[in-house]
Amino acid sequence: VTDATVSSVPPVFVVVRDAPRSATEKKKTELCQELSLQARDLRFQHSTSLTARNNCIIIRMESLKAIVTPEHLSVLDFRGLGLERWLVLDLAPQLASHTHSLPFEFRALEAILQHKVNTLQARLNDVEPSILDTLESLVDPKILSADRSKLHILLQNSKSLSELETDVKVFKDSLLKILDEDEIIEELCLTKWTDPRVFEESSLGIDHAEEMELLLENYYMQAEELGNKARELRGLIDDSESVIFINLDSHRNVMMRLNLQLTMGSFSLTLFGLIGVAFGMNLTSSFEEDPRVFWLVTGFMFLGSGMIWRRLLSFLGRHLEPSIPSLVIQTHTHTYVSLSPFCTVYSFYYVTSLSKYKYFTSKY
Amino acid sequence: VTDATVSSVPPVFVVVRDAPRSATEKKKTELCQELSLQARDLRFQHSTSLTARNNCIIIRMESLKAIVTPEHLSVLDFRGLGLERWLVLDLAPQLASHTHSLPFEFRALEAILQHKVNTLQARLNDVEPSILDTLESLVDPKILSADRSKLHILLQNSKSLSELETDVKVFKDSLLKILDEDEIIEELCLTKWTDPRVFEESSLGIDHAEEMELLLENYYMQAEELGNKARELRGLIDDSESVIFINLDSHRNVMMRLNLQLTMGSFSLTLFGLIGVAFGMNLTSSFEEDPRVFWLVTGFMFLGSGMIWRRLLSFLGRHLEPSIPSLVIQTHTHTYVSLSPFCTVYSFYYVTSLSKYKYFTSKY
Amino acid sequence: VTDATVSSVPPVFVVVRDAPRSATEKKKTELCQELSLQARDLRFQHSTSLTARNNCIIIRMESLKAIVTPEHLSVLDFRGLGLERWLVLDLAPQLASHTHSLPFEFRALEAILQHKVNTLQARLNDVEPSILDTLESLVDPKILSADRSKLHILLQNSKSLSELETDVKVFKDSLLKILDEDEIIEELCLTKWTDPRVFEESSLGIDHAEEMELLLENYYMQAEELGNKARELRGLIDDSESVIFINLDSHRNVMMRLNLQLTMGSFSLTLFGLIGVAFGMNLTSSFEEDPRVFWLVTGFMFLGSGMIWRRLLSFLGRHLEPSIPSLVIQTHTHTYVSLSPFCTVYSFYYVTSLSKYKYFTSKY
Amino acid sequence: VTDATVSSVPPVFVVVRDAPRSATEKKKTELCQELSLQARDLRFQHSTSLTARNNCIIIRMESLKAIVTPEHLSVLDFRGLGLERWLVLDLAPQLASHTHSLPFEFRALEAILQHKVNTLQARLNDVEPSILDTLESLVDPKILSADRSKLHILLQNSKSLSELETDVKVFKDSLLKILDEDEIIEELCLTKWTDPRVFEESSLGIDHAEEMELLLENYYMQAEELGNKARELRGLIDDSESVIFINLDSHRNVMMRLNLQLTMGSFSLTLFGLIGVAFGMNLTSSFEEDPRVFWLVTGFMFLGSGMIWRRLLSFLGRHLEPSIPSLVIQTHTHTYVSLSPFCTVYSFYYVTSLSKYKYFTSKY
Amino acid sequence: VTDATVSSVPPVFVVVRDAPRSATEKKKTELCQELSLQARDLRFQHSTSLTARNNCIIIRMESLKAIVTPEHLSVLDFRGLGLERWLVLDLAPQLASHTHSLPFEFRALEAILQHKVNTLQARLNDVEPSILDTLESLVDPKILSADRSKLHILLQNSKSLSELETDVKVFKDSLLKILDEDEIIEELCLTKWTDPRVFEESSLGIDHAEEMELLLENYYMQAEELGNKARELRGLIDDSESVIFINLDSHRNVMMRLNLQLTMGSFSLTLFGLIGVAFGMNLTSSFEEDPRVFWLVTGFMFLGSGMIWRRLLSFLGRHLEPSIPSLVIQTHTHTYVSLSPFCTVYSFYYVTSLSKYKYFTSKY
Repeated sequence: VTDATVSSVPPVFVVVRDAPRSATEKKKTELCQELSLQARDLRFQHSTSLTARNNCIIIRMESLKAIVTPEHLSVLDFRGLGLERWLVLDLAPQLASHTHSLPFEFRALEAILQHKVNTLQARLNDVEPSILDTLESLVDPKILSADRSKLHILLQNSKSLSELETDVKVFKDSLLKILDEDEIIEELCLTKWTDPRVFEESSLGIDHAEEMELLLENYYMQAEELGNKARELRGLIDDSESVIFINLDSHRNVMMRLNLQLTMGSFSLTLFGLIGVAFGMNLTSSFEEDPRVFWLVTGFMFLGSGMIWRRLLSFLGRHLEPSIPSLVIQTHTHTYVSLSPFCTVYSFYYVTSLSKYKYFTSKY
Repeated sequence: VTDATVSSVPPVFVVVRDAPRSATEKKKTELCQELSLQARDLRFQHSTSLTARNNCIIIRMESLKAIVTPEHLSVLDFRGLGLERWLVLDLAPQLASHTHSLPFEFRALEAILQHKVNTLQARLNDVEPSILDTLESLVDPKILSADRSKLHILLQNSKSLSELETDVKVFKDSLLKILDEDEIIEELCLTKWTDPRVFEESSLGIDHAEEMELLLENYYMQAEELGNKARELRGLIDDSESVIFINLDSHRNVMMRLNLQLTMGSFSLTLFGLIGVAFGMNLTSSFEEDPRVFWLVTGFMFLGSGMIWRRLLSFLGRHLEPSIPSLVIQTHTHTYVSLSPFCTVYSFYYVTSLSKYKYFTSKY
Repeated sequence: VTDATVSSVPPVFVVVRDAPRSATEKKKTELCQELSLQARDLRFQHSTSLTARNNCIIIRMESLKAIVTPEHLSVLDFRGLGLERWLVLDLAPQLASHTHSLPFEFRALEAILQHKVNTLQARLNDVEPSILDTLESLVDPKILSADRSKLHILLQNSKSLSELETDVKVFKDSLLKILDEDEIIEELCLTKWTDPRVFEESSLGIDHAEEMELLLENYYMQAEELGNKARELRGLIDDSESVIFINLDSHRNVMMRLNLQLTMGSFSLTLFGLIGVAFGMNLTSSFEEDPRVFWLVTGFMFLGSGMIWRRLLSFLGRHLEPSIPSLVIQTHTHTYVSLSPFCTVYSFYYVTSLSKYKYFTSKY
Repeated sequence: VTDATVSSVPPVFVVVRDAPRSATEKKKTELCQELSLQARDLRFQHSTSLTARNNCIIIRMESLKAIVTPEHLSVLDFRGLGLERWLVLDLAPQLASHTHSLPFEFRALEAILQHKVNTLQARLNDVEPSILDTLESLVDPKILSADRSKLHILLQNSKSLSELETDVKVFKDSLLKILDEDEIIEELCLTKWTDPRVFEESSLGIDHAEEMELLLENYYMQAEELGNKARELRGLIDDSESVIFINLDSHRNVMMRLNLQLTMGSFSLTLFGLIGVAFGMNLTSSFEEDPRVFWLVTGFMFLGSGMIWRRLLSFLGRHLEPSIPSLVIQTHTHTYVSLSPFCTVYSFYYVTSLSKYKYFTSKY
Repeated sequence: VTDATVSSVPPVFVVVRDAPRSATEKKKTELCQELSLQARDLRFQHSTSLTARNNCIIIRMESLKAIVTPEHLSVLDFRGLGLERWLVLDLAPQLASHTHSLPFEFRALEAILQHKVNTLQARLNDVEPSILDTLESLVDPKILSADRSKLHILLQNSKSLSELETDVKVFKDSLLKILDEDEIIEELCLTKWTDPRVFEESSLGIDHAEEMELLLENYYMQAEELGNKARELRGLIDDSESVIFINLDSHRNVMMRLNLQLTMGSFSLTLFGLIGVAFGMNLTSSFEEDPRVFWLVTGFMFLGSGMIWRRLLSFLGRHLEPSIPSLVIQTHTHTYVSLSPFCTVYSFYYVTSLSKYKYFTSKY
């Protein structure tokens, strides 16, 4: 049955009675007449509502639309809504059970609310492990870049979670509205008004209104627990996102330091390579014939660049793990400090040129 | 009609009656006299208000300003406010429908509140797909840098959304204020006070005040649903922004690793290129005549830089996916570890110089 | 008059009566005696308060401290507080207007509350365009780095905004406290208790307490609207900050990609430049005399580096816009993939050396 | 005893009386009969509940399920739940103490609530030092990259903290629900209803209901304090995360400046190295024989690159600490300014070529 | 006196009477007997509490524990708690003042509450300038990297602030609990119950309960103002953190652009340096003898690299300030566009090789 056909068919209610498997079908108009309800009472405008009208309880819980009377429960035609299983397998036994010796409307209401809470719980159960798994793999410190497909899953689940939170909130609000007004609770106890024997029974210790309040409160608290779980999950997502960001930033810092160390190396090599380039010029340096000079200059190039690099590396080490006071004083000194390794390079220049000079003077 | 002309024209009310298309026009002062209202009652100071005064209901819903009496509905001159369509097409049939057999003021109030909710819903429908589209394209993991025009659209929509949230909240608050006070609800049932027959009818099962409460509650809940939708959208925007940031950061990390790998390559090449530069100097290395040395040194340069690079890459691989304990111990060891590949480079120096030395010794 | 002189002068109240421009001055002690108030009633401890004492209304709205009696309004000496304009220009006409035929205390209270709301509105009007302007220029996608002076302005305005929010909240709370207790509203209707004629009038349809409630509620709702506006502004600031961050991050990613592309180019050039360096060595390569080899090697250097670069660029293109599945599978494969372009470089080595070899073998 | 065996064993209650160590065991069904409770009363559906039924108090506090009567306290079989220590060591003395001369149910309730608060406190004590330690080490400014194992610990603790917050909230809500309804408080005073002597005693100054309210309020406030502590901790985590991000960003900026300074150095060296490369070409420059030119060009290369570098560094220094107005004016000027050091490089070109030209002209 | 000795000493109360300096000491047990209080009433379990018991007011405000009777105020031994100054200097005059002609317990309560509010205010005064200073220096746009010692101070102050917020909230809640229940306010008016003359006086216009309500409300509003200040500070911290992040990000972008510009320069130099390297090879290029070729190639190298660099810079300028539409269309075109400058490099290749070719053909 497709959606199109469903909408063209006039709405049919499946009427379930106390007795096992006594389901019959009735048209909406028949039902209205029989229960002397008005058509607009059965419009089910809001996604979640629970009201008493004319000695009937009219309930809508998302896709489940039902009317509870003291004798039977009518569920609006449920084809294609995923309610068949529940109607066939769960509802009948729940309605038939007489353990609590409570009137029919209690059992019917309990069955419907339990179904609603189960649906919400199932949605949470669906979304929770997926979120936990995704977060687990996203906060993994070994990961350099967040897996985007996981992010997509997380976003989807986060959306589902906030929809679930809204639904739990709406469900809680609709129950709370009833729990806050004793009159409505009294109205929900249908049998009390229709069955004179009940008043006698009630003298035996069972107060219908109180039982109804307990029943509603029970489901309210179950919804509250679901809401708490969802809120904790949301908090976990937020915390994990912070951790993901710190992880990514940390990775970046580590890579940047490696990069900086290599740049230092390249700089040292370029600096001392310049000497080689200088000697490579087709110009007369007067050392061309001295065989020692080749090894001297080559050695100087390699050792010099190694030394400078080592110096820069140790400077970096000190720079990134500063004793706090030195950093505190002023930014200007800071800038000054940051230039100091270059000063050593400069001074190296001078030393080098000096030593060259000496070499020359010693030579000539 | 421009705004200027509108403001110069004295305000005119369009009076709509029960009968189809019986609209007449009246001046504000005439209306005041007729309904014995005071001028200040018709000042419509607040953007959203719903009050009962002198057996009239005075309503303002943003641009829609109206007075409801038991017999007719007067809407303040609506030119240029986009209300014409609604007034002509929707209002008349709604007022004329007698399905619920409820007094005129109920139908008028329902028409106005429905119009308000429809307007809010339309604004949400306007903004929602635009937000979803924009987010969809912004969280796309393939995108390296966020499309700024999309960001602009998102910002605009986000602003519209928060305006909508405010309006929904104001609408809900104005209804809630009435729902919280039974007296005001009674006052809103105008016919009850004017028409003696109503008291008789009410004995037939319809309680006007209760009907009014249901009517208002209905629109309150519709507004609540709109508010929930808007809040979910807001949450989706926040979540998506986190995902966008993670995406951008991830891209950056990936690029930074590639950059680092290339820097490693360049470093290796520079390091071994220095050998070539050294042999390029116009100095006597005594190998000038040996034809094998050219291939030996060239091979050494290429293979050596390849090897060092491979070593650095594998070091990077290990460094970025560390076994957790090794990272935990101490930052100082960490720094030490980070220097280890350079140590291999250093040791390579020594090995190289050693092997050179050997080569020399074997040579001479 | 400086602050010092103000504080040394005993506080003087300006007493304004109904009649136009009938302002007189009175000392605090005189006023206390006249109205039989206690000194502590006029201490005005809280920044915002509105209380009824001994048939007087004692009001403080930040800098405005006033006492309202059924006959006159006394404002505490206002020199240097920016209230002169208001007192001279606005207050007198408002007190003199008899349009609503309401007692004096209503007009006085309305004048003061209107002044307070106007002050709050003026502050919002002051801060709003500045914030909108600053945000407009900060979220401009063309900007590479946020303009820090704009940030400073934004921070200042954001601070003003939260101060305004606090003041609106305090004002709303002080009105709400009165609206919640009917007794206090009754106490505020001073004339009702002093003027016997009022009771007669009230039979003519005007209920003083109800009018007072409407008056206070009116200003409460105006404050509420201000609060809503302020909250929307705050939300806009938050949203804009996210957009600024995304903008800055996007710019960075774009620059980083450009940088990476150039690094790839430099790497290619360095790699093939090594060949040139090798041939530049003062070693015998046996090709020295062949004129074709110069062009061959030079061409190889330029074309080779161009090809490798193109390869790296296309690798980057594929790497940054991955088909999602390939990234999902595993980080290890990911690392593997990221090495693949380097593999092509390696294989290029081998091919190169092979072709060289061939060239050699063909040569010799 | 494993979980499996526990579930297969029918639930057994340990009944503890006033007298020391008088514990006996009873089956659930026996207890139900004895206390005339219904089976569903002992289903303990919610994780935290406290209700009065049939002159018994039925309590569940997570793992602790108990029934309090005026004479004894029955605790559901506690094996494997970590309650043994408490039951043996703490409970008996607490129940036996007669200091307050309050009925048994007060002492039992106090023991259970105290146990619950102690459990919550213990969990907070567990999580608090761990969080403080982890944060302490994470906000350490010396750290370049966040320690990921610490992040993992933080995430775990943060999760525990939010679970604790939920439990405290649930505990507070369950107490608040009772404190809000005087009837339930009365019902909790079991002895009042069963023991006629109590009414006499109460005339001696002790009001049972008031004592019960004080008792519950006491634990409510203790829970409130726990909640406040937890909220402060949560705030500290958030603040610390901001500081961690600022730290990581600062490190990155410092490294980036160092990197930029080195890039400037490398650029200068490459620029002037080009001169050396030019002179290294196997082309006739006509300076080949002049011995001064070698030293001149070499000196020019080193000094020139040093000068340009110094210029670039000082440009960077000015660029990063701008006088605000210069940055404010326009982005276009900004771009212009950023090019200025390169202009100096360009002009240097021209100067260089000019000086070369001069040299030439002086030469020829 | 150390903590250890304090705890070993039995608690002593300092009893202060109306008369100046009439302090005596009493043991806890004596006091209990005298006032017929029970031991547990003086356990002062909660950090902030204010209750009436047996015609005494028992107060604890953190370290200050006191009992107020209609005749005297007993403060628990205050050694080492920093209360001496207050007890000696402030308390006595406050108790002795008879200005308001209110009973003793009002003056005592006022003194204690004033002390509490002063303490809270002092803590805010302590923390506020420090926070403002730290933020001022942290949001300074000139700073490249956040000063970590300032961050540490900020974190400490932020923690103090949230502790202060909690304490203000607890103080407000404890006052609100009393203000919400008129009975407790009545109980706090001790003299009303003990002194028969008070009833006569009260007919003179002073209602004790009302005075008590005013007194408590006064301190409630003072606490409220403190809370508002603290919340504004918290908001300022959050806003400033955003500004710090934007500042750091902006600095990074500026540095990254400079780096990119230099990388472009280095790339250009490397590209054209390759020509020099090529001519440096020991291979026959047949230009060796032509003296013009040296200057031609050298000039080409320098000018070419300068031109390419200029081209890349202008490309960067256009790339970072794009007309929005060009960026919007598609990411693929985007990638294409980003390659365009390299295309110009490529085409430059071809042009170069072409011109070389021409040169050759013209040569040969």
